[in-house]
Amino acid sequence: MKARDKEKIQNRLRRIEGQVRGVQRMVEEEAYCVDVLTQLGSIVSASEKVALLLLKDHTEHCVRGAIEDGEGADEKMEELMGAIERFLRV
Amino acid sequence: MKARDKEKIQNRLRRIEGQVRGVQRMVEEEAYCVDVLTQLGSIVSASEKVALLLLKDHTEHCVRGAIEDGEGADEKMEELMGAIERFLRV
Amino acid sequence: MKARDKEKIQNRLRRIEGQVRGVQRMVEEEAYCVDVLTQLGSIVSASEKVALLLLKDHTEHCVRGAIEDGEGADEKMEELMGAIERFLRV
Amino acid sequence: MKARDKEKIQNRLRRIEGQVRGVQRMVEEEAYCVDVLTQLGSIVSASEKVALLLLKDHTEHCVRGAIEDGEGADEKMEELMGAIERFLRV
Repeated sequence: MKARDKEKIQNRLRRIEGQVRGVQRMVEEEAYCVDVLTQLGSIVSASEKVALLLLKDHTEHCVRGAIEDGEGADEKMEELMGAIERFLRV
Repeated sequence: MKARDKEKIQNRLRRIEGQVRGVQRMVEEEAYCVDVLTQLGSIVSASEKVALLLLKDHTEHCVRGAIEDGEGADEKMEELMGAIERFLRV
Repeated sequence: MKARDKEKIQNRLRRIEGQVRGVQRMVEEEAYCVDVLTQLGSIVSASEKVALLLLKDHTEHCVRGAIEDGEGADEKMEELMGAIERFLRV
Repeated sequence: MKARDKEKIQNRLRRIEGQVRGVQRMVEEEAYCVDVLTQLGSIVSASEKVALLLLKDHTEHCVRGAIEDGEGADEKMEELMGAIERFLRV
């Protein structure tokens, strides 16, 4: 992974970690349920966005590389589809 | 919220926080992309499960209470549907 | 269900049926994959929107009614949560 | 698309069309809401499964082909990620 992408992903993960701690505080202080739900929804979205960044990076480098090299392409393709499948939960 | 439910939710949130830190470590150590994706998928599922617990609790107490009291029921119902709508992202 | 809501839902279902037939034609005529995917995504969204309308209607009438009558409320609540759970697929 | 895959996809689409008509009948005959919701959930899942089949087929042939030919690969990759992004709705 390129250093710049890695830093971008780590920043997002740190923000998600902060959001999870924020939700813990909200639950502790008995914040209004609907507000907590909104925060959880935003954690879900943020996690899915990081997943998409990783998916792009993986496809762009790892999968594409394997196809260009003509080596291990089938395996990489299958793995990619499996990852997408788990994410779509279909 | 009942003390027992609160503790249950806090435990789950702490586990999610740990998972997010785990993903940071994986990215740091350049773990295999597909494994990181699997972990992110598990954070998404765990967050949605906490949201569902909160949704149940909120509906069971807050919404039901408002209907039983005959006060603020319409508002609570609308709020609940809005929360579900945001979660389904429809 | 009120006649007006029923008509609204039936109209949406007929539109979804038309979209599904449209996708069949696209596949038949070997339309570009990404365009077919976009159409399928729109069927998914439209189906979820109908589900949300039904969920609102059900909660507003059936669940709320049971709570107001003080009869069968627990069962209705559980059923509602089960339906939401299956929809969120958590 | 291979003839066998096409037939498989068309069969699934016909089944989805039948399910959508089934839901119309259920609404017409005022079936129980929760049962209608279950049917709609099954339409959503079935549509997502067809989308995944198309996504696999598209990646396997169109995207992979472009990479192997060394022509239009960037564009295909971007298009693929856009399609996944819309499906994940992130």
